[in-house]
Formats: sequence, structure tokens, C-alpha cells
Amino acid sequence: MTLVIGVDFGTLSGRAVVVRVSDGAELGSAVHAYTHGVLERHLPGRADKPLPPDWALQVPQDYLDVLRHAVPEALRAAGADPADVIGLATDFTACTVLPTTADGAPLCELDEWRDRPHAYIKLWKHHAAQPQADRITEVAAKRGEAWLPRYGGLISSEWEFAKALQVLEEDPQVWAATRYWVEAADWIVWRMTGTYLRNACTAGYKGQFVDGEYPSAAYLAELNPAFADFPATRLDAPIGQLGQPAGTLTEEAAGWMGLPTSVVVAVGNVDAHVSAPAAQAVEPGQLVAIMGTSTCHVMSGDVLREVPGMCGVVEGGIVPGLWGYEAGQSGVGDIFGWFVDNAVPAGYAEAAAAAGQSVHEYLSALAASRPVGAHGLMALDWHSGNRSPLVDHELSGVIVGQTLATRPEDQYRALIEATAYGTRLIIETFRESGVEVNELIVTGGLQKNPLVMQIYADVTRMPISLLDSDQGPALGSALHAAVAAGAYPDIRAAAAAMGRVVRGAWTPDEADADRYDALYAEYRTLVDYFGRHGNDVMRRLRGIRREALR
Amino acid sequence: MTLVIGVDFGTLSGRAVVVRVSDGAELGSAVHAYTHGVLERHLPGRADKPLPPDWALQVPQDYLDVLRHAVPEALRAAGADPADVIGLATDFTACTVLPTTADGAPLCELDEWRDRPHAYIKLWKHHAAQPQADRITEVAAKRGEAWLPRYGGLISSEWEFAKALQVLEEDPQVWAATRYWVEAADWIVWRMTGTYLRNACTAGYKGQFVDGEYPSAAYLAELNPAFADFPATRLDAPIGQLGQPAGTLTEEAAGWMGLPTSVVVAVGNVDAHVSAPAAQAVEPGQLVAIMGTSTCHVMSGDVLREVPGMCGVVEGGIVPGLWGYEAGQSGVGDIFGWFVDNAVPAGYAEAAAAAGQSVHEYLSALAASRPVGAHGLMALDWHSGNRSPLVDHELSGVIVGQTLATRPEDQYRALIEATAYGTRLIIETFRESGVEVNELIVTGGLQKNPLVMQIYADVTRMPISLLDSDQGPALGSALHAAVAAGAYPDIRAAAAAMGRVVRGAWTPDEADADRYDALYAEYRTLVDYFGRHGNDVMRRLRGIRREALR
Repeated sequence: MTLVIGVDFGTLSGRAVVVRVSDGAELGSAVHAYTHGVLERHLPGRADKPLPPDWALQVPQDYLDVLRHAVPEALRAAGADPADVIGLATDFTACTVLPTTADGAPLCELDEWRDRPHAYIKLWKHHAAQPQADRITEVAAKRGEAWLPRYGGLISSEWEFAKALQVLEEDPQVWAATRYWVEAADWIVWRMTGTYLRNACTAGYKGQFVDGEYPSAAYLAELNPAFADFPATRLDAPIGQLGQPAGTLTEEAAGWMGLPTSVVVAVGNVDAHVSAPAAQAVEPGQLVAIMGTSTCHVMSGDVLREVPGMCGVVEGGIVPGLWGYEAGQSGVGDIFGWFVDNAVPAGYAEAAAAAGQSVHEYLSALAASRPVGAHGLMALDWHSGNRSPLVDHELSGVIVGQTLATRPEDQYRALIEATAYGTRLIIETFRESGVEVNELIVTGGLQKNPLVMQIYADVTRMPISLLDSDQGPALGSALHAAVAAGAYPDIRAAAAAMGRVVRGAWTPDEADADRYDALYAEYRTLVDYFGRHGNDVMRRLRGIRREALR
Repeated sequence: MTLVIGVDFGTLSGRAVVVRVSDGAELGSAVHAYTHGVLERHLPGRADKPLPPDWALQVPQDYLDVLRHAVPEALRAAGADPADVIGLATDFTACTVLPTTADGAPLCELDEWRDRPHAYIKLWKHHAAQPQADRITEVAAKRGEAWLPRYGGLISSEWEFAKALQVLEEDPQVWAATRYWVEAADWIVWRMTGTYLRNACTAGYKGQFVDGEYPSAAYLAELNPAFADFPATRLDAPIGQLGQPAGTLTEEAAGWMGLPTSVVVAVGNVDAHVSAPAAQAVEPGQLVAIMGTSTCHVMSGDVLREVPGMCGVVEGGIVPGLWGYEAGQSGVGDIFGWFVDNAVPAGYAEAAAAAGQSVHEYLSALAASRPVGAHGLMALDWHSGNRSPLVDHELSGVIVGQTLATRPEDQYRALIEATAYGTRLIIETFRESGVEVNELIVTGGLQKNPLVMQIYADVTRMPISLLDSDQGPALGSALHAAVAAGAYPDIRAAAAAMGRVVRGAWTPDEADADRYDALYAEYRTLVDYFGRHGNDVMRRLRGIRREALR
């Protein structure tokens, strides 16, 4: 019996899963929470120095602790002999990025920089580089940079360049001491193997590495003269393809985990993208929706097209040899959560408790009992703005059609439907751009809500398949570990043997789908009106709001 | 000391107030609840025969019981000598209407008809004549009937003709037995004095009596051949002007109330319209907003203009000699009530209780603490459709601008603001039609909410005066009683001496009013889009809803 280990580094904890190479069986798993969690208020032990708003940092030792604790525990839980482990792979939140010395030591671990916030890991949700991101997009648009359409026309404040430029401009000393600007996804592999490779996925999606090149020095100089040499001086590491071996474990890393040094470690990867092969989505047109607080859509294609509002298209970004497309909905589960927290009266919470249900379950059951369209409502799912396809964070939510007879479950359902229309709009945008979409595969927490799943099937008119694992990213990493270790010739073969998908778990109801076609037409009209400059009232309301709060 | 009595007949009870003629002091009052309330499910004692949906009936004896109980009680509470009472006047909900014999006996009191629902009083909120109302409007529009614009282009299902036509078409025998089709406002005066006059107010606003004529027989025949003679055979009574004496008390009526037969009884009136003189609003341009679950706007003008969407313009409809305009907002306080019942989480109810406040008070205080525009929201107040100026009951509510940071108090405030924008739109529609509006006077329950009042002042940029009485309609009736009894030469003089108004109780804040100007511009754009065929999505959503529930 040969085994591999997948390790998924999330926002608050890391999870290790021990997987059988022959069939993908998950034999044991363990979770280890980060001691420092997310630093949003101050550095460790420095409550006297508060961080500014929108900051979100992490501590590198927390990641190593996952290796030290979760991996051995998962092995024990699996009853596994460490000698049977042939490979290990990791996936990470992204873009989560840190400054290091030439040998990969995080600056924040050096006494000299320990008190400097910019020396720490900037977590994906560190949003304080928005001014830098705005300039990055603006200057690129003005210069007509050819790579900008690859990102749907928008560079996020979450990505490598914005976060780096913030360090340069806010703490030039930390910037000067930075030899490498490293994705955490690559840093963890570097720590385990001694080899630094930039994985093709984050380099492409988060690092603006397009067709073998970073943005030009001329462009970067226009952002800030001192930024012109950023790629040459701080991103200069070879690119590693997904599923490629980065090396084997160092003595030290093997010791942390109780594994032999023969274990092959794969190139780093990203939690969303690594899930696709776990769901056997390795062919063009298989769209994987990772549905949680927000939804990330990843899909491979055999053609390169410019799709409006996509988050990125990267060669080999999901599966080597194919174009990996990513799109996203800024708000999904968090909109439902906001509604439950802010707009559901006491009686519902009591009735749910009496029925032994969560408020979500209770509302879902009530909403499911009524026919499609009976609530008379139409909502737009832009409470956190719209990423794909409109790329506009100034947009906001709308609900139309309320009467005195409108009940909480009606609005709740309308919000769910709005997110389904949002998914359909993304699918149609791909198709209209010449990128085929043939299958919808759902993973993430929302796959457990039957009402949500049925609505998505009806609205998209597509059967919905489910990734059949609660630890999709870690399983996806395990597949990459198997490929890196040579157990399978490529990720397709590994997905076929080890991936887990329930095909057609939900299928469209034809009559309901017809009714949803009519409702979706209304959604598109409102999208154009509110989102495509029919009426820029949302932007103006934001402006009035900012004025009022000044 | 001379006294008058005002009696206000509401939906569930009647209220009598004893008022001093010299200064309008309210010396004593009493309320008597109707024994039968509103019959919505079945006739008294006939639970075996359920009424259809949208029916709402009343029982005439309940009104007489108000005279029997509330009037003597109010006299006792006032410590008044009945011999000092010189006049009495009444106001009523409208259109509340009943079939009678030639001598005014309600058909429902006769054994022959006691079991027939159509023999009963149809309360204002009896909405089962909608199909008849639709035809009444449709045929009038098709024929270009000149009177239709006097009603803003729409005849309501609540009014005399629709309710009469329903009787004719659903129970021809009751129709055949009906000698008079009588407004309850006139019936009560008839019962007290023996004289049947149709008051100019309800005849005009509810009875389609325009420039001295009812709709033509040719028009009515097109609705139903048997309806052609309706005005000639069932509305044939003289018109009485407001404040005119109808007669003195009969021995019987004097006996019910313990009053002398010398007491002069005024012509009947309507609760909303009678309030205007109580608030000293007897001159052109003084708009009285009666703000409760919905808002009724009444105002006199010295010119006749066709105002889009007004409920009616009637000569002497409020003050003899002036054109009385009426407009309305279908939903106001009931929208706030709906929100509190359906969209406010448990924590708020608990915090309100802990603070000894109602949820409305608690939300209002929270909302009031934030600057204008800080919530970033814009709502349309059409949860019950829009009466003025759009006359469209297929419209519905909208809220734009929600984010995950939107709190219940934000939405609550946005709804209040939306109703204020609705009022401003009505005021602007009057002005754009050539009818001046100079002053805004508020009465009704919502005048007690400081947040609502300040927002209305800021949004309309008008100082707000308040009718300084909790029993405005009864006080207004008392004024009319004084005029009818000859204590004052006309209602203007009575209003000057007896009316009660606090002028400029709320005044606009200039900076907030400026900000509201910007927000109101957004409201108007959305009004045009959703309400004036920019996008008929609301109508289509209603259609889809009806299909779904079929």
C-alpha cells in the first residue's frame, strides 16, 4: 500500500489528509489551528501598536506547526506506516505573500524586523493595498498593457504587485531588506525541500506572469521608479509546473513530520485550483464552483480567450497544458449569512430552534415549499460588489418586488436565486467569449443545502455534480503528490483513479427551469441597468455615503 | 358656555368629543367599540356561510350604539350640561356604503334580507368589487369620459359605483330592493335628523358627482344595461354642502344621546377631509397629510387643475367655495410595521425592551444618530403599489444599495425616507400642475415619531406644522357643528377660533436638505424607471407570481 499526504493551508488552520494512492481513499486526517490566527489588530505582543484598518497578517511558524502536528496526527489517525508515504503536496490561500532573505528566512523572524508590520506575511484578505492596486490597474489601462485583459481588466489589491508596492512605499527599509517576495504556497515547499520554485498557478493568477514575462520595467517605473526592478530583484526564481516534484524532504522537515526523506514534495498550489482534479475536472469545459462565503470558479480550456471580468487565465494554471480560467462571485454564502443575522425576526429563530434546525435550514425548507416565482421578487447579488463579469466593487445589493405580504423566506430565496443568476451570467459570459462550459461541479459548504443546489441546477439548466469529499483541497493536493512522486503519469490519470465526484447529483426540473428563464431575463435587464451604466445610482450612493461619513 | 359635539366614526369604533365653541377646547371624550367590528369571515351568527375573500362588512346598529353610549359618556366626562350643546356633526370612513329602503331602513335589518351579504354595509376596505372597478375605469378611458381625469384616471374598487355594480351583478334581488345607495356618512345624519342629504364631499370623491352630474346613462349602460339608471333611481337625493345644517335631532335621536331636540346636526363628512379645518388648513395651498398606515393628503385650491394621479378634486370637497384636492400614498406606516414584523432580528427586539422602547422607537433612535446618506440606500415606497401620482397597484417595493454592512436601522430609515420622497413627489406633481402648495401640516399617528417628522421637513424643504389634537377628525366635526349651528359664519371663522395647530414644529436643516436633494434626484430616476415604463419588471414579476400560484 502506497500513500500520499495532502496538506491544505486555510485562513485559520491547516489540514492534513492521508490518502491511498491506488483509489484516493481518505484514510485519516487532522486539523491544526494557527496559534496566531489572523493578525488584524496588532503584531504578537504589541497591543500598544494597533494595525491600520484592512490589514491582515500571519506568522510563518504557524504554518510549520501544521506540518509538525497535523501530519503526524493524520498518519496516526490513518493507522499508516510513514514508510509507505511516497509523496506530499500542499495548497494554500492566495495571494498570501511574505518578504524573505536570500535563504528563505521570513524577515519577521529576524530581530531587526520583528516589530515592523510590513515584515510579516500579508494574508489574502489584507486589503490595505487598495490605493496601490488602483494605480496598478489605472496605469496599465492607460498604457494599454497587453496583459491587463488576461485579468478581466482589473488587478486586485489582494495580489503580489499591489502588496509589494505597498511595502515599498510604506516601509522602504523592509523593502530594501527583502531579497525574495514569496508566495506562502511556495515558501512552505521551499522550507520542506530547500528548493525555491514559483508555482505556475500563483505566478500567473497573482503574480502577473503572462506568457513568460512579468510587467515591463517601463510600466513599473511609471508606478514608482523604485518599483521598476521588482521582478528582476525579488521574483527571480524558476517557475514550477503543477504536479512537478520540487524535491524531497530535508532531514529537518522529515523530522518534523516523522516521514522518510525519500518523500517527494510537489510544487505548491492554490486551494481553489487544486480542487479541480479532486473533482475529476481536468478536461476543457468542466467548471468547478467552490461555493462558500464567496464563490470561486475554476475551469480549464483548450483555447485562450479574453473573457470579460474573469479573475485570470493562466497557461497550466490548473492543469498543465491547458489554459486555466478563474472567475468569481464576490458574495454568496456571506450574503445569506448577512440576511440571517440582520433581517430574520425572532419568531423564525425560535421556530428553527424548536424544529432542531439552523435558521438557514428553516428558511430553506419554508422557501423550498413554494413554487418558483411565487415570491414575486428579483434581487441582485452585489452586496460585496461584483467581480465577474462586471469587475465593480462599487456595486451593491438590490431587491425588487417587496409587498406587505413578503416574508423572510421569500427574500432569502430571492437572494439565493440572485447568486444562481450570477453564476449563470458567468457561464454565459464564458460561452459568449468562445470558451465552452459543459459541466457544473460544486464543492464547498453550500453543496450541503438542497434548496441552493436545486436552484442552481434549474437556473443554469445544467446537471450539478458534487465533489464527494469534505476536504477537497487536501484531496486535490494528495493527487498532485501522487503525480509528483511518479505514481501516475499525469494529473488526468491521478484524477481518474483518485478523484471523487458524484455526477448529476442534482438535475434541472424542466418546468422550473422554464420559469427561471423568464426570471433570469429580468435579472439581465437589471444587471445592465445597475451594472453597465444604465443608471450609476449605486456608485453615486456610495459617493454620498463617503461624503456623509467624512 | 356653548358646546358642540363631534363624532368620528372609524373602522373599529366611534369617538365623541365635547368641544367649547369659543376656543375649541376639548372638554371630554369617549370611545365606543363596534360590537360586530368588521365582518370579514361571515355574517353575524352565520359561521356556516363564509364570506368570499376581500369582503369587509359592517352592521348599522353599531353606529347607533356610538351615539347611545359614546355621546352621553363624553358629556359626562366633560361635566357638561346637555342643554349647552347647540350643534353636533359627524365624520365617517369612506366610501362606506349601504342599501336602504325609501325611508332609510338598512336592508340588512329586514328579515327578508338579513341572510344576504349584499344587504350589509360595505366598509371602505371591502375590495371585492375590483373587477367592477377595473371595468368602470376601462370603459371610461375608452370613451374618454371627461370626469375621469378628475380622479387621476382611476376609479377605485372602494368607491360607490364599483360597490353598487357588484351588488347588481352578484345579487340582483338585493339590488332590486335597494331604493337608496347611501354613504354611511349620510345615513347617520339621516337617522338623527330624518333628512337625507348627500354630502358634497363623498358625493364628489366617492360618488363620481362632477360639475353637478353623475356619469351618463349611456356610459353606465356600457358597463351593464341594468346599471344605466343607477344615479336616477338610487342616488337621487339633494346635495348638502359641508358645514350646512341638515336639520335638528329627532325625538328618538335626542333620546339616545340625552340631548335637546334643538341641537343642529351638520351635513356628513369624511374623516380625512374634516381634519383640515381642525388644523386651520382652510386656505389654498395648505396641505394636510393624515399619516397613519397610509397617508391621505387633502388640500384646498382656488383653481381647478388636472393633477396626475390625484384621488379626486371636488368643488367644496373640503371647504365650501374652494376646490378640494385629495391625493394619497398607499403605504406608509404599514410599510414600517411590515419591516418591524418581518425584517428585524431578535437582538433588536431585546435591546428595545431593555431600553423600555418599542422596536420602532429603538430603530428610529439608532437611525437618527447617523448622518443623512450614511446608509448608502435608496428605497421605493410601493409595497402597496402607488396611488399618487402613478396610480398603479402592480408596483412594488425596491431597496437599492445593500452591503454586508447594512444594518436593520439603515433599511428602516431608507423606508421612512422613501415615503418622504413619495410625499415630495406628490407636492411637486401638484406644483407642476399649477396648484400651489405652501404649507405642510401633519396629523395622524406618525406625527409622534421625531425621526419621521425631521426627515419629512428636510426632504420637502418645508416647515412642518402639526394638528395639535389626538382626535383631529372629531375636532374637525365639532367645528362643522359650530358652523351648522350658526356660532360662526363659516368654516374659516370656526377654524380661526377653534382649530389647533402648532406651526413650524419641525423645520428643515439646510445641510441635510441639500443632501436629500441629491438623494431625491436618485429617487425620481428610479420612479421613472420602475414606475413609468422604463422597465416594467414589477408588473412582470406580479404576472409570474400569479402564474406560479395558479
